[in-house]
Amino acid sequence: MAKKRNIIVGQSGGPTAVINASLAGVYKNALERGFDKVYGMLHGIQGLLDEQYVDLSTQIHYELDIELLKRTPSAFLGSCRYKLPEIHENKALYEKIFDILNRLDIEVFIYIGGNDSMDTIKKLSDYAILTGQMQKFLGVPKTIDNDLALTDHTPGFGSAAKYIGASTKEVIRDANGLVYKKNMITLIEVMGRNAGWLTGATALAKSEDCEGPDLIYLPEVTFDMDRFLAKIKDLMNKKESIVVAVSEGIKLADGRYVCELGSVGDYVDAFGHKQLQGTATYLANYLASEVNCKTRAVELSTLQRSASHMASRVDIDEAFMVGGAAVKAADEGDTGKMVVIDRVADDPYMSATGIYDVHRIANEEKLVPRSWMNREGTYVTKYFVDYVKPLIQGDYQPIMVNGLPRHLVLNKKAKR
Amino acid sequence: MAKKRNIIVGQSGGPTAVINASLAGVYKNALERGFDKVYGMLHGIQGLLDEQYVDLSTQIHYELDIELLKRTPSAFLGSCRYKLPEIHENKALYEKIFDILNRLDIEVFIYIGGNDSMDTIKKLSDYAILTGQMQKFLGVPKTIDNDLALTDHTPGFGSAAKYIGASTKEVIRDANGLVYKKNMITLIEVMGRNAGWLTGATALAKSEDCEGPDLIYLPEVTFDMDRFLAKIKDLMNKKESIVVAVSEGIKLADGRYVCELGSVGDYVDAFGHKQLQGTATYLANYLASEVNCKTRAVELSTLQRSASHMASRVDIDEAFMVGGAAVKAADEGDTGKMVVIDRVADDPYMSATGIYDVHRIANEEKLVPRSWMNREGTYVTKYFVDYVKPLIQGDYQPIMVNGLPRHLVLNKKAKR
Repeated sequence: MAKKRNIIVGQSGGPTAVINASLAGVYKNALERGFDKVYGMLHGIQGLLDEQYVDLSTQIHYELDIELLKRTPSAFLGSCRYKLPEIHENKALYEKIFDILNRLDIEVFIYIGGNDSMDTIKKLSDYAILTGQMQKFLGVPKTIDNDLALTDHTPGFGSAAKYIGASTKEVIRDANGLVYKKNMITLIEVMGRNAGWLTGATALAKSEDCEGPDLIYLPEVTFDMDRFLAKIKDLMNKKESIVVAVSEGIKLADGRYVCELGSVGDYVDAFGHKQLQGTATYLANYLASEVNCKTRAVELSTLQRSASHMASRVDIDEAFMVGGAAVKAADEGDTGKMVVIDRVADDPYMSATGIYDVHRIANEEKLVPRSWMNREGTYVTKYFVDYVKPLIQGDYQPIMVNGLPRHLVLNKKAKR
Repeated sequence: MAKKRNIIVGQSGGPTAVINASLAGVYKNALERGFDKVYGMLHGIQGLLDEQYVDLSTQIHYELDIELLKRTPSAFLGSCRYKLPEIHENKALYEKIFDILNRLDIEVFIYIGGNDSMDTIKKLSDYAILTGQMQKFLGVPKTIDNDLALTDHTPGFGSAAKYIGASTKEVIRDANGLVYKKNMITLIEVMGRNAGWLTGATALAKSEDCEGPDLIYLPEVTFDMDRFLAKIKDLMNKKESIVVAVSEGIKLADGRYVCELGSVGDYVDAFGHKQLQGTATYLANYLASEVNCKTRAVELSTLQRSASHMASRVDIDEAFMVGGAAVKAADEGDTGKMVVIDRVADDPYMSATGIYDVHRIANEEKLVPRSWMNREGTYVTKYFVDYVKPLIQGDYQPIMVNGLPRHLVLNKKAKR
């Protein structure tokens, strides 16, 4: 009997609106290429270590399921934030993983994730090479943060940017409709620890029917409270409603996060990242006392990464495409690599997949170039907007059931 | 020359996703009934006192503009929170208003708003009758809060409920995808000072593809911290991700708002309403310290009232309908009245407009009946869900330009 050709795929890190489109792309391409089974790790490598996985054919029965999966936010298989130890630190753990992979006849291991997940691909492919194992390890990029190196952009970013742009427009209108002969300052807090891609996307709101935010502060530039206050005072003389977009990760010159000035706790995740929240609330309270006007804080919070009802068609299609490209690359012999998206043309926008050695990618963060912000660091430039705009185009209409978008959910009873 | 027959229409109070559909309904019906001009007050009665108004024919040129208006959130004309004094307190103010109305040949005055706005209709119609003026004053209901008496529901509520239901589903999925072998508690804060209609709408998330929130706390029932904590501890033994919906207006037995236990300020608006915010954040911090698990707070904030990209078709159509019905009622001689929505049938859902004396409506708040919550006050019942479900059905697809929903904006240069 010929050896089975199976694939196992996992999802890791923070959710996005399109992370399941990549899963759909892996699944569909794997079947088309004649792989026997596609397993899904439940909660990534952490679940795999507990032997938690499903045979995806027990979950996806119809083409309609693929369509639902494309419209389902957050990791369908469950995610994890689990950092593998260095190989020399815990060889037994690696042996356990490869024992499971061998038992399942896994030929290809695909991990859909961000920076931390590419670290997993790097370590597993290194271990396989070191120990002469034959599995291929491929990474599929995924992060709303758009901070992965070498890829033009990451799947998940376009949809988050679209949601942020649309919500910013709505928040600006909401404020404009309310204020009359007095000032009101609205602070919109957007995700992005070190990279300001998402916060910059608030500039998309600027269009012929919306003036856009007045100020945009990215974490790439040091935040100065005094200069901020001066800017606000100046704006208050010019207009009634002032809308400011701030990244959750803006920092003072002394290195403290602005949100640390507030009262939120100090939660640190498995990768040592501090939990950031409360930047907008802190600044709203600060301004209310400094300039004596009504302020309000709007945190886009987890909504911005899971709003599949506002996902971008370009983003979903590209997420699907990179999933399929990972299967193809593995099938053709690649390992220790991540699929990337190359921008082939700007106008009309075209993209294609490429592939890079994961050693060149892992643990590197792509920030917004300083030249894509204005000199004062209070707005993004046309280059930034031109870069993002193609990524938010089009949509997949949600499949509505009883007035709400329908999602595909894991059937835990049909596990294996 | 025959006397001109003009209408003036204003928008007041908090924005909704469909307040402009009512404006569109007024405009279209007024033209069809042969009125000469439709003026729009800018920022309601407050702007009118400053003689701020537009001729709507300078703003709405095409049928496409009507369609855009239906999809544009927040008051197109601008809103206000302005409480008219009692007639005996400031007669001069009333004289000023009627002087403006007479100068503009206004036959019908229509005000789109909530409780506070109906108070304006009541006072102006009383004054007209007292002083023998011929104008008709009609109210068009509008509030996401759904707390107006005598109408089955208010335009704006259905769209907010739809957005809340969809966002709750997405937040629940986001959490489910993340947690593995540990607890996480998500608190979703929903608007609603005294009435829990919007918070109850989180129960819409409960469907064959979503388990819905675990607990729902409405302001109609006194909130007890100890019982809440016990509920959470119990849930933590049963499941990993716990999602709790709380109204911003939940109160302790001693009358304090839960959010007052936190650090947010004491802003009070023109109608003496306290600004409520921070309930979820307070409870998230409280639980994090009490049960030592990861918690997070999601405030749906102003997004829930301005998310026209997720508006309900039923809601938009009804908002349009009540606008038109107000014009019809005035044209037929009614004054001092508010249009209401009557539920004609449940299955299939049908509605029609009715009309009520505004004296019976103003300043009365419709709360969620106690029998529509479970005995413990920790969830809504099937009656509640059956009531809301028809109101979130269908959609008007946003008109997308460059990847974002397009809105209609006031052209201030073409003011008169």
